[in-house]
Amino acid sequence: MARRGLLLILSSPSGAGKSTLAKQLMAWDPAIRFSISATTRAPRPGEVNGKDYYFVSRDDFLRQAKDGEMLEHAEVFENFYGSPRAPVAAALENGKDVLFDVDWQGGQQIRQAMRDDAVLVFVLPPTIAELEKRLKGRAQDSAEVVAKRMAKSRDEISHWAEYDYVLVNKDLPAAFEELKSIVVAERLRRDRQPDLSNFVRTLNSEFDAR
Amino acid sequence: MARRGLLLILSSPSGAGKSTLAKQLMAWDPAIRFSISATTRAPRPGEVNGKDYYFVSRDDFLRQAKDGEMLEHAEVFENFYGSPRAPVAAALENGKDVLFDVDWQGGQQIRQAMRDDAVLVFVLPPTIAELEKRLKGRAQDSAEVVAKRMAKSRDEISHWAEYDYVLVNKDLPAAFEELKSIVVAERLRRDRQPDLSNFVRTLNSEFDAR
Repeated sequence: MARRGLLLILSSPSGAGKSTLAKQLMAWDPAIRFSISATTRAPRPGEVNGKDYYFVSRDDFLRQAKDGEMLEHAEVFENFYGSPRAPVAAALENGKDVLFDVDWQGGQQIRQAMRDDAVLVFVLPPTIAELEKRLKGRAQDSAEVVAKRMAKSRDEISHWAEYDYVLVNKDLPAAFEELKSIVVAERLRRDRQPDLSNFVRTLNSEFDAR
Repeated sequence: MARRGLLLILSSPSGAGKSTLAKQLMAWDPAIRFSISATTRAPRPGEVNGKDYYFVSRDDFLRQAKDGEMLEHAEVFENFYGSPRAPVAAALENGKDVLFDVDWQGGQQIRQAMRDDAVLVFVLPPTIAELEKRLKGRAQDSAEVVAKRMAKSRDEISHWAEYDYVLVNKDLPAAFEELKSIVVAERLRRDRQPDLSNFVRTLNSEFDAR
């Protein structure tokens, strides 16, 4: 049956496993669209424009934000990040779910813009030691960047209570099962299944024909 | 982590597979408590008092309902059915989920009494032909009883839009996976995890200690 797409917003401090969970979710259901962020920051080695991010100039970014072409945007460490609106609108029109990997500011802005369609999921690390270990494992980041990320992580965690669902990523396969269950359940919400009225009408015709 | 128990209300027309789904759910998680209904109707062959139903006299039932000892109750085909309140309250206090196999009237009454703790799931049959086939397969019911049940089924189905979640039981294993996902997801709702505040406090102490 056709249904209304949902906007799945996944937030967590850096290193809590959010990106891995997002990738697994899209491998599980390739129909889920990932909202590729636009950013003014420089590409890291290996990052591809239009796949990892849309890398845009500061001027272009600010113009698009001003024209309402960003569903949400924010400045982080002197760079801008945002979610372009057009691909999200197109996906929803086709009944596709859209996955967002955004921070708490992005999540709140999307919720405000799209109220009933937004489902906010926060991923917590089991311990801060584990979070730091995962962050330090990223060879390309300097010690200074790691320190900044740890401070941002603390700030990010302080917003956990603004989310609909909270899961603790102690064990990745278990956390993924939980995330999948949230998606399956949210799709079964009555108000996300507009075709149910027609389906029940068909059942009633069957009663009439007996 | 400790959490608030939820009241899972499963409704469907007779023959849509609700009882089988309920049994599978309790086999999956034996910690889920089933709310055994009290009834004034006579036991069917094989039914055990205190297991299938609490079989009580009309006088006892009406006194208990009057004294507020029933979470919900209704008259169906000249018999009374109700959900005793005490075992539900005890289960919730111990953080256990409670499963109810009740009709739309029961579901609505429980929602009114327990608002935030109630999760209402409606199970639809794939076709009415299939529903009738399953009803006729129950050898102990007379043709007259089957006819009455079909009329009640139509009435029950007309209340699908009062539920939080709706699933179509076309294929039992798939429907069970869906039901399980609803339970897993609802348990992950932030407001059902009162211990999260303590957990985040622990994470913050870890940040402080670095």
